[in-house]
Amino acid sequence: MIQPKRRELLITPKDLIPSQVDLQVDCVFNAGVCTLGEEIILLLRVAESPKKQAGKRGVVMMAEGRSIVKWLDEADPLYDLSDPRGVKDAGTGKTLYLTSLSHLRIARSRDGIHFQIDTHPELFPTGEMESWGIEDPRIAKVEDTYWVSYTAVSPAGSVPAVMTTKDFKIFERKGLILPPENKDVCFFPNKIKNQCVCLHRPVPKGIGTPDIWCAFSPDGVYWGEHHRLFGVREGWQNMKRFGAGAPPFEAEAGWIEIFHAADDSNRYVLGIAVLDRKDPRKILKIVEEPILQPEAEFEKQGFYGNVVFTCGLVERADEIWIYYGCADTSTAVAVFDREELKKLWS
Amino acid sequence: MIQPKRRELLITPKDLIPSQVDLQVDCVFNAGVCTLGEEIILLLRVAESPKKQAGKRGVVMMAEGRSIVKWLDEADPLYDLSDPRGVKDAGTGKTLYLTSLSHLRIARSRDGIHFQIDTHPELFPTGEMESWGIEDPRIAKVEDTYWVSYTAVSPAGSVPAVMTTKDFKIFERKGLILPPENKDVCFFPNKIKNQCVCLHRPVPKGIGTPDIWCAFSPDGVYWGEHHRLFGVREGWQNMKRFGAGAPPFEAEAGWIEIFHAADDSNRYVLGIAVLDRKDPRKILKIVEEPILQPEAEFEKQGFYGNVVFTCGLVERADEIWIYYGCADTSTAVAVFDREELKKLWS
Repeated sequence: MIQPKRRELLITPKDLIPSQVDLQVDCVFNAGVCTLGEEIILLLRVAESPKKQAGKRGVVMMAEGRSIVKWLDEADPLYDLSDPRGVKDAGTGKTLYLTSLSHLRIARSRDGIHFQIDTHPELFPTGEMESWGIEDPRIAKVEDTYWVSYTAVSPAGSVPAVMTTKDFKIFERKGLILPPENKDVCFFPNKIKNQCVCLHRPVPKGIGTPDIWCAFSPDGVYWGEHHRLFGVREGWQNMKRFGAGAPPFEAEAGWIEIFHAADDSNRYVLGIAVLDRKDPRKILKIVEEPILQPEAEFEKQGFYGNVVFTCGLVERADEIWIYYGCADTSTAVAVFDREELKKLWS
Repeated sequence: MIQPKRRELLITPKDLIPSQVDLQVDCVFNAGVCTLGEEIILLLRVAESPKKQAGKRGVVMMAEGRSIVKWLDEADPLYDLSDPRGVKDAGTGKTLYLTSLSHLRIARSRDGIHFQIDTHPELFPTGEMESWGIEDPRIAKVEDTYWVSYTAVSPAGSVPAVMTTKDFKIFERKGLILPPENKDVCFFPNKIKNQCVCLHRPVPKGIGTPDIWCAFSPDGVYWGEHHRLFGVREGWQNMKRFGAGAPPFEAEAGWIEIFHAADDSNRYVLGIAVLDRKDPRKILKIVEEPILQPEAEFEKQGFYGNVVFTCGLVERADEIWIYYGCADTSTAVAVFDREELKKLWS
């Protein structure tokens, strides 16, 4: 079985200062990753929830530029509280509230292990379509610009949005690039045949399964030529959901995509797919075995256990450093020997 | 209550010749509509199913350029046959097959009532993403080109696709413009601020409801700037699904959109929304009452009863002719006095 050379827990919720006094940091995970000059940047997803009160369930949302807390009676039969991530209408099953609100915060490091974490949110949810938070950023450098793709969450659904930056100080919002329900958008670094390319993961309600698709764009803002890549039908047995993980990186064999797959019990693992360098609609290989599975205690236990979920990696000399969220709680890194992985993808 | 001046049944399945000897025409409905020279063109959705066999359920799909029929044993406990439109896995609820396959066929008329219907399909499903059919076309003329937006259906989902034509003889396929699950794409006639604009209707599985959204495009092929317009939250009580109907037409008051709404029992009605002429993201009005509801026998009884569903209309002097599918079976027209409707939308 494939294993990383090492896996190391790097950042946990107690390392962060909440953005408001009435909130606590529950989770710091699913970080976008890139290099900027000599530094490795993590754009951390920070999920905050109301500080606990006995017998009450706190929920949180954005309104008028700040996080608003609302308290629900846990005994109220109208609410289904079985999922720690949200409150559902007990009758219709519709999500009424989320229990946490996510913003994005920057952490910087020179060695990739020790991170200096900002005390303030760099990117806060803005506007009606982000009223339930911004989540799971991916970062890809296309020419001289970093494209940050993330999920805008609101009662209208989970919607992919993008912003651009050159310095991680000034960000330009480019709007919603795809309709709901869709997540896990990764841009390819650089254009292919003069087009931006992305992976995305729609979740159809009726016909279809949560699979990985790709799309093309002249400019990163307007997207078309949607094409289903792979997922439930082609994927590993018992896996019911697939999604892109890190933005693909280029190797001789093709574009290497580290994706995630989840089974019915929401256990998430990471795998490798290889796409054609000139035409990423062509799947050259899906490696048969996962490369990372929840095994360590910090991956198995947490806010939502048995999850390893990546939004980014860095290539460092002869190693691949995959940053990943563990148990929807913390941020870790799995370091792979590049030659070992190459045996799989070649 | 609002009523059309008259409603008239125009085309029924018996008016059509099947495309293959082993198929029967079940439904001719949900036609795209436009004018071409002196003629009114209907681009009919024609749904065909295998001729009945006792104890068997016939299903049909595209393969290698033709319709392939497969027979399922109605007694097989693996199948859920409760919905006449498809066969589901009795365990997972997943749609396994559709019972009919739709193509698009042209009908022409000078008076808008008497149509000459082609004996051959004009547009047949093509490729993997259309293997379960092409459905519900809308036609909008943008500059000198007709844009036909339709739903490509396959095991991968319901996906909006477009093709263009100038003469309804030569069609150019432009690919899938949005990911699944999405239907009811209508282009606006002509550009607004040099952009193509469309309405679309995503169906999120988790958070969100089946609402009407709009999007923008420089060229009709690549789309972005998605914006939720209205739907379940703003809409009429008890209505659980909304979707654009006919492509919007321009009036002094704004863009007039005839949309559909459906309740929990899948009863479909038509309504009017008014969008700002310069910025169609602004909703000026949603008329409180439906303008068309299933009342006639041919609207209440059929393959799927209690449905009125429009994909297009024509403006004729002082009248608005709304062509619509009735009971998912036939094609009718509802003729409205323009001044009467204007009272509603002004």
